[in-house]
Amino acid sequence: MIDDADKKGSDKLDSKQVEHINEEKMALMLKLSGMIRDGAKAFLFKEYSYMIVFCILFGLIIFFLAETQMGECWTVITFEIGAVTSIISGYIGMMIAVTANVKTTKECAISLQRGFIVAYKAGSVLGFVLVGLALLVMAILMIAYRLMYLPQNPEEVTWLHYQLMFEKIAGYGLGGSIIALFGRVGGGVYTKAADVGSDLAGKVVKGLPEDDIRNPGTIADNVGDNVGDIAGMGADLFGSLAESTCAALVVSGTSPLLVINTGAYYYPLCISAFGILACIATWFFATQPEMCCRIQRFSDVEKVIKGQLLISTLILIPGIYIVTVIMLPPTFSFDGIEQEVTRNACYVCTLCGLISGFLIGIVTEYYTSNEYGPVRELAESCKKGPAPNVIKGLALGYISNVVPVICLAVTIYISFKFADMYGIALAALGMLSNLCIGLAIDGYGPISDNAGGIAEMSHLHLTRTRTDKLDAAGNTTAAIGKGFAIGSACLVSLALFGAFATRCHLTVVNVLEPLQFSGLVIGAMLPYAFTAMTMKAVGTAAEAMIEEIARQDKLGLLKEGATPDYAKCIEIATKASLSEMFPPGILVIASPIVIGCLFGPKAVAGVLAGAIVSAIQMAFSQSNTGGAWDNAKKYIEAGGVKPEILDEKDEEGQNIVINHAKGSDTHKAAVCGDTVGDPLKDTSGPALNILMKLMAIISLVFGDFFIRTAYLIPKTSEV
Amino acid sequence: MIDDADKKGSDKLDSKQVEHINEEKMALMLKLSGMIRDGAKAFLFKEYSYMIVFCILFGLIIFFLAETQMGECWTVITFEIGAVTSIISGYIGMMIAVTANVKTTKECAISLQRGFIVAYKAGSVLGFVLVGLALLVMAILMIAYRLMYLPQNPEEVTWLHYQLMFEKIAGYGLGGSIIALFGRVGGGVYTKAADVGSDLAGKVVKGLPEDDIRNPGTIADNVGDNVGDIAGMGADLFGSLAESTCAALVVSGTSPLLVINTGAYYYPLCISAFGILACIATWFFATQPEMCCRIQRFSDVEKVIKGQLLISTLILIPGIYIVTVIMLPPTFSFDGIEQEVTRNACYVCTLCGLISGFLIGIVTEYYTSNEYGPVRELAESCKKGPAPNVIKGLALGYISNVVPVICLAVTIYISFKFADMYGIALAALGMLSNLCIGLAIDGYGPISDNAGGIAEMSHLHLTRTRTDKLDAAGNTTAAIGKGFAIGSACLVSLALFGAFATRCHLTVVNVLEPLQFSGLVIGAMLPYAFTAMTMKAVGTAAEAMIEEIARQDKLGLLKEGATPDYAKCIEIATKASLSEMFPPGILVIASPIVIGCLFGPKAVAGVLAGAIVSAIQMAFSQSNTGGAWDNAKKYIEAGGVKPEILDEKDEEGQNIVINHAKGSDTHKAAVCGDTVGDPLKDTSGPALNILMKLMAIISLVFGDFFIRTAYLIPKTSEV
Repeated sequence: MIDDADKKGSDKLDSKQVEHINEEKMALMLKLSGMIRDGAKAFLFKEYSYMIVFCILFGLIIFFLAETQMGECWTVITFEIGAVTSIISGYIGMMIAVTANVKTTKECAISLQRGFIVAYKAGSVLGFVLVGLALLVMAILMIAYRLMYLPQNPEEVTWLHYQLMFEKIAGYGLGGSIIALFGRVGGGVYTKAADVGSDLAGKVVKGLPEDDIRNPGTIADNVGDNVGDIAGMGADLFGSLAESTCAALVVSGTSPLLVINTGAYYYPLCISAFGILACIATWFFATQPEMCCRIQRFSDVEKVIKGQLLISTLILIPGIYIVTVIMLPPTFSFDGIEQEVTRNACYVCTLCGLISGFLIGIVTEYYTSNEYGPVRELAESCKKGPAPNVIKGLALGYISNVVPVICLAVTIYISFKFADMYGIALAALGMLSNLCIGLAIDGYGPISDNAGGIAEMSHLHLTRTRTDKLDAAGNTTAAIGKGFAIGSACLVSLALFGAFATRCHLTVVNVLEPLQFSGLVIGAMLPYAFTAMTMKAVGTAAEAMIEEIARQDKLGLLKEGATPDYAKCIEIATKASLSEMFPPGILVIASPIVIGCLFGPKAVAGVLAGAIVSAIQMAFSQSNTGGAWDNAKKYIEAGGVKPEILDEKDEEGQNIVINHAKGSDTHKAAVCGDTVGDPLKDTSGPALNILMKLMAIISLVFGDFFIRTAYLIPKTSEV
Repeated sequence: MIDDADKKGSDKLDSKQVEHINEEKMALMLKLSGMIRDGAKAFLFKEYSYMIVFCILFGLIIFFLAETQMGECWTVITFEIGAVTSIISGYIGMMIAVTANVKTTKECAISLQRGFIVAYKAGSVLGFVLVGLALLVMAILMIAYRLMYLPQNPEEVTWLHYQLMFEKIAGYGLGGSIIALFGRVGGGVYTKAADVGSDLAGKVVKGLPEDDIRNPGTIADNVGDNVGDIAGMGADLFGSLAESTCAALVVSGTSPLLVINTGAYYYPLCISAFGILACIATWFFATQPEMCCRIQRFSDVEKVIKGQLLISTLILIPGIYIVTVIMLPPTFSFDGIEQEVTRNACYVCTLCGLISGFLIGIVTEYYTSNEYGPVRELAESCKKGPAPNVIKGLALGYISNVVPVICLAVTIYISFKFADMYGIALAALGMLSNLCIGLAIDGYGPISDNAGGIAEMSHLHLTRTRTDKLDAAGNTTAAIGKGFAIGSACLVSLALFGAFATRCHLTVVNVLEPLQFSGLVIGAMLPYAFTAMTMKAVGTAAEAMIEEIARQDKLGLLKEGATPDYAKCIEIATKASLSEMFPPGILVIASPIVIGCLFGPKAVAGVLAGAIVSAIQMAFSQSNTGGAWDNAKKYIEAGGVKPEILDEKDEEGQNIVINHAKGSDTHKAAVCGDTVGDPLKDTSGPALNILMKLMAIISLVFGDFFIRTAYLIPKTSEV
């Protein structure tokens, strides 16, 4: 697919030239970075203040409806701890990113290599801090509850004690997930409203590019990258990690041997802990140019990132085996399952998750990187206008589901078969074991995007070409990160679904029964309703933004020399995203509670199964479609689609040349696809992960309540 | 939502003016109609010749793999009868439509009223012939097999005889469905390749509108309406009817009383038969202008059509009750279900289907008609360019799922609860009981579209404005028809799924087991892969078409006075659609067979459940999105989006006016949405119905084979 002519167009060697940054430019860059930081901080503070109120109210709901023993409030406390930890994680991530962006710009002025290293290092800090924090709090909770709930005399300990204790711990995952949901949706609406708004500003104000300093939406756009793609994504994956650990614990509560054995108790934590060590080792390969990471052209960035995934996977394969042998007893069994589970079976489950995560990453890269056929064909189809681009892009997203879904199905089958729902939870932990690297490559994207924005606004042209290369790779890495997030979210939700079934004593969820099948159909519909709501939210917010830009244009604020009112645009994006994040959020939170309260756990089981299977498909296809459209645009901008020389001659006797570069109709068609893809890949797509996980963990926490109520179902029909 | 200003714009009173058609124009019209007929015939003959070969081969597969008793071939024979009946149905429908199109043009020259009546009458003929034929053949088969399989002595009759007999009859549905699948996909690719190709022709040849006589793709476009939307759709709904009757019979095979009672045996047929009578009565209301159907403006067309649905539903409500009381025994029971089923319960199930079909129709109309808010908002969003239009359109499609899916879920729950899977089959029959009307309003659309094409090519401008109104209503009616088709397909597939479970002795399909959950995930992915394949097929075929048009332009064939090579375009569309219809078709047919052969019936059950829940959502959203985009474009063309008068003055001191009419940027944005929607609403969306039904009936017919093979699953794990 990659011929030499294309190579030259899109993938030139990095020049040795250094762009000089004088003091004035430096001051401007720092000022811009400061504005971005302040905007992001202001948004997060406002968003978190809403969330804190929501969490207090939701805590009351948990207290009255979901606490197993009346008057106790440990689930509520764990829930609030989870929420606060998630908030802190998002905030730390954002602070790192807003500091790293200007540094990346500076280094990119020197070389692509140095720019990459700074951006990647910043992403890694984010990854290590988040995972470390999640594990630390989880470990403290596990030790504290162990001391609190278990009788002093070890002989009195039964697995019932554990069961009770683990249900409290599930609150931790719930807290993390609720914050993640609002973070993703609120941040996603913010970032895409600003992005789409400034993209389309050119429609109302002629000749106003997206990242131009005269575009008043540009600072909001850069703020959005930080609050949506960094803080939101951090909270999302923090939630995944917390929830998969919770799921493993709750399920292991039904295995007497697993819970009494101290090693086995800490096994899920140890997988993640070892993952951190493995990622630190891996990380050295990316940051030492003299070792294996020479970044001289665009394609090198993707190679290094793929290398990072591969190396961490290779280190983890034997590493997890050692952890398993040390921590787990040779064989154990679960209540309700006849077969004995061996230590090796558990290892196989974890490995399945790890490998299928790697495969999902590779496939995602294939469909979203402009190094391969799919994106290049998409770019070619732009020649025929926006409609063929949109048609082909949607088809690309749909077909890109196939391999990841098969990977997941195989993982589910094997780990289910080997260790039932515990196996699924382990597979999720396996997939998340190199989460630090996943977060690093995911965080690297928005940092480069920001660096590019700062370069453009400071008129550093050479630097901008370098940041563009980093950013194009960032689209792919973001898609890979999302692929991981979706895959792990699927496994985590399924494990939580299993935990929910265990808790509600459902041994069978029979889709040949009316309640379950109706639930399945309704559940599969929820991701569609959710996507529609978030997309509409982005549309509405972007329109408000465009109107504001048009207003400022009328006032003459956008002329050369005048200062546009950036703050007003930030305010509009903030307001719109905060008011728009609640309806879809409430849909996700209320659906399982209302359905469970009216129709009982069986209906909820149907809804969960439906929502999970439907959300996976939509999430994969949305994030891949969006990534592919964005990169098709970048590919055209980099000159990947060659000008056509026609046989016909013009008046001067020269052959007519049809140009496909920036500004041509072809490029406009590509921009249309990119704009459509924006809300898909950065708002609704990634929020769908959280939809599955959150619905599952809410069902788990409220399971007991559903059994007690189920108002519309004759009690006899319950198991 | 509808203010007076809008009314005036889009919904003017029909003028009394009659457009004169001179002999020359008449001859041209007849010539055009003849070309369309010949093109359609040629395509269908070619398509059917492929299908006949396929059906013979597939008959052999059935013979060797699926016949329960070795050496017997009754399933094969019934299968071939189903296939042939389906082919005949499609052909008759197409012949009616290609004769009616020019008549509609002629009548539209006189008045909107007369044009509507001709088009609707033609649609009705299609409806009555199709349903009548399906019932006739079904009745003959049922009588023949009863005579053949049942012992002479009534005392020797057991329900096992019936069970065996019904399984043969299932072949009838399978034959109908396989033809329907290829008809829908082949016809859908044909019609959309031609449509998208001629839409985009303007991109390569400046100023060449879609329906212009100089556009060589225009005849192919009109042929496509007949082969895709008439023949394909007819075969689709013929299949639904045949399959729902089969499903009711197979399920009733497990009820001793139901099968031995002659009335009960013919009950499913009688519902459909009474439906024909009810539709004949209803039909009079639409065709008698003096009674209640005065069509003077655009909105009247939709009112009459809604009226038709309402009247037929109102007649059927008491009618079906009478049929039920006459035909069914007061109570009966099923094997494996404890509860007794009463006659009244069966009536409720049928009623549920009928009413939920009506509701789905109404909701679909709301989302796709330009009389209501959603489409008007979509049209307004076109002002901001193609991307906002695509974003809002996708969101519209997703949200339009909600009510239909809830209707279906409630119907499933109630009918499941009242009469188990038999109830679901009855609900499907209830929804299809006014199928004649459904087919009439569905067939009416492409006929008007063709009439409009002929009017445009014959330069009848007043007539064209009238056919445009009919056609705009036709987009809505097509969406309503598709809504019915999807809803009934969901119920039919579920009933067949139940029949499959009965046949394979699966009493439980537990999604908490690995095989079933993995199947569920894979099954939910199949509609995505299928959609991607069909969309890509349309894209590829449309590109071939555009290249051909460009080639003819170079040769000077498209200049005023020259005759473009229509036949070449027809040939290209035919070739492309026939070669592109096999891969997605094989995917649907092979998936259940391969999975069943390797992993057994349990995995197939999971795949079926996943495919059904996922396909419903995609089918609803795709057909509604496409209909809404098409009508948003029509709304803009009719002047629904008012020109904006700005405060700014131009050089002459006049206020600057931004125009949104045909040819403006706003209209171009709308055309982009329409083009994207074309393959969604006419190729992949409607083919998804058949995907669900076909996968379910294949599983049913091959169920026995799956039990015998299941190579990769230890036999002990099977129930």
